[in-house]
Amino acid sequence: MPHINVDENLPGIRALLAFSPETATPIGVLTNLLLRSDEGLSMADRELIAAHVSYLNDCFYCHQSHGEIAACYLDGDNKLVDQVKKDYNYADISDKLKALLAIAGSVQKGGKYVTPGQIEHAKNLGATDRDIHDTVLIAAAFCMFNRYVDGLAANTPTDLSTYPLRAKQIVERGYGNHVFSSKQPARENSEK
Amino acid sequence: MPHINVDENLPGIRALLAFSPETATPIGVLTNLLLRSDEGLSMADRELIAAHVSYLNDCFYCHQSHGEIAACYLDGDNKLVDQVKKDYNYADISDKLKALLAIAGSVQKGGKYVTPGQIEHAKNLGATDRDIHDTVLIAAAFCMFNRYVDGLAANTPTDLSTYPLRAKQIVERGYGNHVFSSKQPARENSEK
Repeated sequence: MPHINVDENLPGIRALLAFSPETATPIGVLTNLLLRSDEGLSMADRELIAAHVSYLNDCFYCHQSHGEIAACYLDGDNKLVDQVKKDYNYADISDKLKALLAIAGSVQKGGKYVTPGQIEHAKNLGATDRDIHDTVLIAAAFCMFNRYVDGLAANTPTDLSTYPLRAKQIVERGYGNHVFSSKQPARENSEK
Repeated sequence: MPHINVDENLPGIRALLAFSPETATPIGVLTNLLLRSDEGLSMADRELIAAHVSYLNDCFYCHQSHGEIAACYLDGDNKLVDQVKKDYNYADISDKLKALLAIAGSVQKGGKYVTPGQIEHAKNLGATDRDIHDTVLIAAAFCMFNRYVDGLAANTPTDLSTYPLRAKQIVERGYGNHVFSSKQPARENSEK
């Protein structure tokens, strides 16, 4: 049961965003900027970083949600997503992405765990300053989102079939207020 | 030295925000909403929570910055701020704020460390759902900011006299893009 009185019909972070619509707006904008860009890192890369960090933070709602979104960008390859979450060293992804996931994993522990050696290694594999910036900020942002969700004990759907449906919506329409809104179904119908 | 090529004349998070102005905008808006409100929690309470969490995350730039801002709201009582950062149990603050700082400290470790007992205790001392929401989100947001700053090894001014000057600006004008901008001095002059 959530620690505060939120709409029980909304899962995870969506109930919190509906509770506090003012803060939901910049959170939605930030999420969209960090995860819905193919500049440098692909949208799949970004979602994999988000899912990995959320897995390390043991936030089921977030790693399940962003894992399913990543899978949408990866032709439904949930097995790959699962590997990246749990042990990316053995996953069929680029060495550059592995180097960035290592940085993200350090950020999850704390900013000072990122080492110059990790940065140099990522740069040697082609990571730009923008890639490194985005990796650190995505990892840091999920340290916020994961704590927001679990710190308020937000409801986590146990019916796993709901996550791919939601993922498809995000992939089609992105993040933002229109996605988080409790009035979403009506709006979706009117937009179609 | 920062891990990426940022403006060396800007301290801490400001260099990162100037590197990535798109993400700086929602970050500034969110910070303003969380810290520049007297609804429920006072601005002093909010800055004390931010400084305490930043201290627990060992982020010198953030706990020094927000500690000085808190002191501005508390008639320059840096001794009290220092107590709240390090061991608020002995600080001359309300029991309600102590209960909220305990929740913030749990959020710093991870969302699941917040216990129903901590929430009940805070509510018994008068904390509203809004107070608890804001405490959790402020603590979570500083887990992001602290990691953003230290994860990219942003420059941390060692001249401690710079922090009170900056704190005064924030107290007078709030957070947001106009504060974070690298062009701030020129804008400030033109606005005066």
